[in-house]
Amino acid sequence: MSDYHDRLMAAEILGSRTNDSLLTPSIIYLAHIFPSWLSDFSVVHFLASLRTKMPSPAVSRLDASTIAGSDGPTATANIATSTNPSENANATATNQIHQNPALVHKESAVASSANVIEGAKQLAAFTAVDQHILPHHKVIGIGSGSTVPYVVERIVQQGKEANAGRVFIPTGFQSKELIVKSGLILGDVDQYPNIDVTIDGADEVDANLNCIKGGGACHLREKVLAEAAETFIVVADYRKNSQVLGTNWKQGVPIEVAPFAYAKLLQNVHRLGSEKATLRMAKAKAGPVVTDNGNFVIDAPFEESRYKDPYELLKSIKMLTGVVEVGLFCHMAKAAYFGNQDGSVTIKQADGQEETIQAH
Amino acid sequence: MSDYHDRLMAAEILGSRTNDSLLTPSIIYLAHIFPSWLSDFSVVHFLASLRTKMPSPAVSRLDASTIAGSDGPTATANIATSTNPSENANATATNQIHQNPALVHKESAVASSANVIEGAKQLAAFTAVDQHILPHHKVIGIGSGSTVPYVVERIVQQGKEANAGRVFIPTGFQSKELIVKSGLILGDVDQYPNIDVTIDGADEVDANLNCIKGGGACHLREKVLAEAAETFIVVADYRKNSQVLGTNWKQGVPIEVAPFAYAKLLQNVHRLGSEKATLRMAKAKAGPVVTDNGNFVIDAPFEESRYKDPYELLKSIKMLTGVVEVGLFCHMAKAAYFGNQDGSVTIKQADGQEETIQAH
Amino acid sequence: MSDYHDRLMAAEILGSRTNDSLLTPSIIYLAHIFPSWLSDFSVVHFLASLRTKMPSPAVSRLDASTIAGSDGPTATANIATSTNPSENANATATNQIHQNPALVHKESAVASSANVIEGAKQLAAFTAVDQHILPHHKVIGIGSGSTVPYVVERIVQQGKEANAGRVFIPTGFQSKELIVKSGLILGDVDQYPNIDVTIDGADEVDANLNCIKGGGACHLREKVLAEAAETFIVVADYRKNSQVLGTNWKQGVPIEVAPFAYAKLLQNVHRLGSEKATLRMAKAKAGPVVTDNGNFVIDAPFEESRYKDPYELLKSIKMLTGVVEVGLFCHMAKAAYFGNQDGSVTIKQADGQEETIQAH
Amino acid sequence: MSDYHDRLMAAEILGSRTNDSLLTPSIIYLAHIFPSWLSDFSVVHFLASLRTKMPSPAVSRLDASTIAGSDGPTATANIATSTNPSENANATATNQIHQNPALVHKESAVASSANVIEGAKQLAAFTAVDQHILPHHKVIGIGSGSTVPYVVERIVQQGKEANAGRVFIPTGFQSKELIVKSGLILGDVDQYPNIDVTIDGADEVDANLNCIKGGGACHLREKVLAEAAETFIVVADYRKNSQVLGTNWKQGVPIEVAPFAYAKLLQNVHRLGSEKATLRMAKAKAGPVVTDNGNFVIDAPFEESRYKDPYELLKSIKMLTGVVEVGLFCHMAKAAYFGNQDGSVTIKQADGQEETIQAH
Repeated sequence: MSDYHDRLMAAEILGSRTNDSLLTPSIIYLAHIFPSWLSDFSVVHFLASLRTKMPSPAVSRLDASTIAGSDGPTATANIATSTNPSENANATATNQIHQNPALVHKESAVASSANVIEGAKQLAAFTAVDQHILPHHKVIGIGSGSTVPYVVERIVQQGKEANAGRVFIPTGFQSKELIVKSGLILGDVDQYPNIDVTIDGADEVDANLNCIKGGGACHLREKVLAEAAETFIVVADYRKNSQVLGTNWKQGVPIEVAPFAYAKLLQNVHRLGSEKATLRMAKAKAGPVVTDNGNFVIDAPFEESRYKDPYELLKSIKMLTGVVEVGLFCHMAKAAYFGNQDGSVTIKQADGQEETIQAH
Repeated sequence: MSDYHDRLMAAEILGSRTNDSLLTPSIIYLAHIFPSWLSDFSVVHFLASLRTKMPSPAVSRLDASTIAGSDGPTATANIATSTNPSENANATATNQIHQNPALVHKESAVASSANVIEGAKQLAAFTAVDQHILPHHKVIGIGSGSTVPYVVERIVQQGKEANAGRVFIPTGFQSKELIVKSGLILGDVDQYPNIDVTIDGADEVDANLNCIKGGGACHLREKVLAEAAETFIVVADYRKNSQVLGTNWKQGVPIEVAPFAYAKLLQNVHRLGSEKATLRMAKAKAGPVVTDNGNFVIDAPFEESRYKDPYELLKSIKMLTGVVEVGLFCHMAKAAYFGNQDGSVTIKQADGQEETIQAH
Repeated sequence: MSDYHDRLMAAEILGSRTNDSLLTPSIIYLAHIFPSWLSDFSVVHFLASLRTKMPSPAVSRLDASTIAGSDGPTATANIATSTNPSENANATATNQIHQNPALVHKESAVASSANVIEGAKQLAAFTAVDQHILPHHKVIGIGSGSTVPYVVERIVQQGKEANAGRVFIPTGFQSKELIVKSGLILGDVDQYPNIDVTIDGADEVDANLNCIKGGGACHLREKVLAEAAETFIVVADYRKNSQVLGTNWKQGVPIEVAPFAYAKLLQNVHRLGSEKATLRMAKAKAGPVVTDNGNFVIDAPFEESRYKDPYELLKSIKMLTGVVEVGLFCHMAKAAYFGNQDGSVTIKQADGQEETIQAH
Repeated sequence: MSDYHDRLMAAEILGSRTNDSLLTPSIIYLAHIFPSWLSDFSVVHFLASLRTKMPSPAVSRLDASTIAGSDGPTATANIATSTNPSENANATATNQIHQNPALVHKESAVASSANVIEGAKQLAAFTAVDQHILPHHKVIGIGSGSTVPYVVERIVQQGKEANAGRVFIPTGFQSKELIVKSGLILGDVDQYPNIDVTIDGADEVDANLNCIKGGGACHLREKVLAEAAETFIVVADYRKNSQVLGTNWKQGVPIEVAPFAYAKLLQNVHRLGSEKATLRMAKAKAGPVVTDNGNFVIDAPFEESRYKDPYELLKSIKMLTGVVEVGLFCHMAKAAYFGNQDGSVTIKQADGQEETIQAH
């Protein structure tokens, strides 16, 4: 579950533009599916600040109908500029944009870019569903991340009949809400320990489809569902697509740990080579993040060399006393679908094959 | 534990100025005591943005020695301007400051104001300790909030001998860290169910010393320690000092609830009159905040009329099935010490007496 | 959930006889439904001792077909004696009993009595289902206790069509297993916070249908489901049927408490008048019982006078800081169905009406 | 923590005799230290039955002074018989045993044997403390099991001065009570992640000092304390002393698992070769045992061949998704001290050395 990461990404992207085209279908959709998402201070803050900054009419907008049930990736904007979403954190920069008419074009380009990415994510999700969720699949695991709502959208499009005999197992609170609000039948993994297909997001995916997961602190449940599935598929946006783990995801390997053991474990993780490993602190409560399983999370960044053999790293971390589960998913994914900035989708297979498909 | 509220306050205050006088002693102190505090995205974000905005030398600074071990409330700045820290959320306002040299003076005044408030909080804490933590008190409860570090500072100043036979019981993760790092002896409430004095912060305090607590989701433990204490004392800054609860603290009464019951409870809390009650969502993990006790939190704002009899409100909420504890502390505090904007301290007693003392 | 009590009851009843008619349908049924039940040391111990005691042919036997869907206690099958190889500790002693022919008659009478009670429990459950689970009821809460398996049996008998559109919400681990193994559709209370009918057991029921529940430490979930239901029905055996609570159930009111608060709460419950209140200790682990919600349980017996106004008692306990939920269910049940020793069923209504129906 | 096992052992031993010499010092001591221990149904049952069985004067008695601080197993006191008024269920049957004089001799022999074993356990504990808890050891981990109270007794005998600067870290609820009631200073492992010496019991110990632990479901905390200690010492009675694990401890390797993952894990543990692995069910609550960390326990027996390389077994179990901690402690203990049936103590070292010392 890479939800937290996705929120930050959303905030970053949102923060990089100043017109209301940020009210793209996916944002509306997310806000509809997850009202709680809007309780996120940062998001609201950015949304509010953007509106304040941009009283002018939006320059380019996507068709809002994509939300209500589009039948495909209809995003068609032309995007050239690829701005780095993280370069615009401070308001000074973006305000300057307003004072410079020459930059307005860039802004709308950025806005369109967001739409194109959303389209690409949707295309990635739809392709993944079309290729892997077949009529005879009856028990399906649903993960999270900003691409997953499109997965559920496509499953719903398979029709009531197809879904009548299916059970959907969520990896966490939000996939549960997503399943329920989409009218699909919810199940428990202890009832259905054998899953046909699980589709989930990831925080980063390497060339061999090893993943870092746990930005949302749900990686224990996600790993149970990934492992319980005959086929495990990852859907994500292009920024999660790396050669080696740790390239884009800098906060480290999320490690769920028993609270009693955390202090000793911090020592042991430091000794294992992650000198900057820290206990993840909460923001909407005092003290550390507590997971849905009642545990703490240590975020442990490692040097690149260690990420080159993630399974060895996983083993050495998991063997530490008090470690509940490690956010490294090795040799599990059968395929990964990435929505690209240009609207295309990159598909990587476990056997090393890679192809890119274009939006029509 | 009003830590989260205090962080937001800190961020708000910080956000309202643009020079490095924000590196006031208390910030440094907090950063020293709680390295984790700096992991707070909002705080870092604001700190970073402030530095970006303000490369110029600070106009006025407080004596950093206050941190390292001042022997009393020596804060002496004169503050006239009382700016509302919440009026500056958007960057437009603050950027305008820069374009208007006339406003620069105001900024430095704001910075000084922060220093004065810190001095007032320290004076409040020191006075509370001097009046209530006496040599024969052996079991002492330590809460949280931005004023509490000054409480511990003053206790440490009572000397090694005074503290040798004392045990300190924390309300949560951060007071535990504070106690340990100050070299005081840590105890458990199940070992010491009878406490002499507990000093804690609050999110808001009314004219009768009823409190709202739970912004940090620690109100169960805080209430156990408040109730277990013969004397319960509140220390806070002026913004927590209200006639009626709900005046400044708008997010509602924090209610800790059993996860199994949350959906039914949301309905029931709505029926009780809090139509806007919501499940508190986490930010550093996906899904809802999970408390240190493994529960969820509902934030339930009520109309002013309901806050006028907080004990009735408390009873009607606590009786709901699945409610673990309500963040209303009624008839518990014996006195409250508020650090004011002008450096003075307001002391309110449970019997209605009120006095204000000035910083020398 | 009164499962623990029921186990002890089963053990008591079983312990009082010495022939294999103890292999009554309900025992077989329970063993089938809850393999885990057989992991209960006491039960296995007693079963083993009974088999050891009774190498002679069984005197009276129940028809094992009752399990698969009998419509009453018609029990007459031939079951070959299978002695248990695990000889029990006091076999020598107990076999000596057999040398006293006078005791054998008494034993077989007791055994028949057990069959009659099982029949009465089944009749109680069937009548409750027939009167309260109607075709238009779509969301149904299922509790626990030794009578509840008959409730599920009768619901299954309503046919696949009737149950196709229904969702069943369990109060705990074992009702979940019961629902799943019966092929019914499982649901969550956070999806279905409004339940049509909940049927559950109880540890004791008074003349006004107030109940003590919590012998199985599941009373929080049970209370959520009872309260969420438009109609709450109790099914139990005659021993739970009292004028005043505390008459038969001597171990006190089960109180689920936050672990952090337990020591202080023990003091406070003592002050409330329950001098013998104790923390419930576990048997299959070290230390106290930990509930499915991660809490502890205090068992607090009170004097009869306090049980005469159970709602007042409930309020005074629930208001204590740290109390999560109290095992007193007041003004909740609409009707209670008790299986009697003579095979009849006593039905008590919330309005005070009482009737007894006979087995055909 | 092997407390549950020890209780069963106590019950077994007690159950095998019929005179009041069972009121040995250690029983009195345990009852004093752990009032909760007496809440154990089996223990009370056996104690009651024994008292009922033996109205005659005790044949052999231990010196009660052993409790208060004896320096060895010198046990010879006179204890007046006190019969318990709570008559037990099979009193009639068991009293018949008494009519067989031939049995009486055997009984008293068994009783003496119990006293000798207690003496041996005490000698084992005292020797372990004398050899491993030295004046410069300041942070000491205290585990559980029936031998550990003697460990604490001996530590207390080292005198107030020696213990003044020491902190004691408990592995669970009962060692916490033991430390507090002995007047020693309690500490937390997150304050003191580096421990000088930890002394704990075990459920079984092999020739290389690998241990099975977790009968009390506390093995996560126990392992944290064992691993955090520079020196880890095991104290136990002779029945835990095996060549190969699984010889005496038949219930299997205790595995603490995340509740969400248990069903999948049962499958995976079966595949790993433990076909009889089961979820441990609770007795004093409904449903499964919940550990102090909020998890479940799977008990997984393996074939002898697997126990011959316990570290390999540990690794293959720990790597399963959802496994929190495995009750196999490999290459951790530096020495093990076993109290023997004949009053002697066997000491095994990690380097393979073994010696036996005799009681004086």
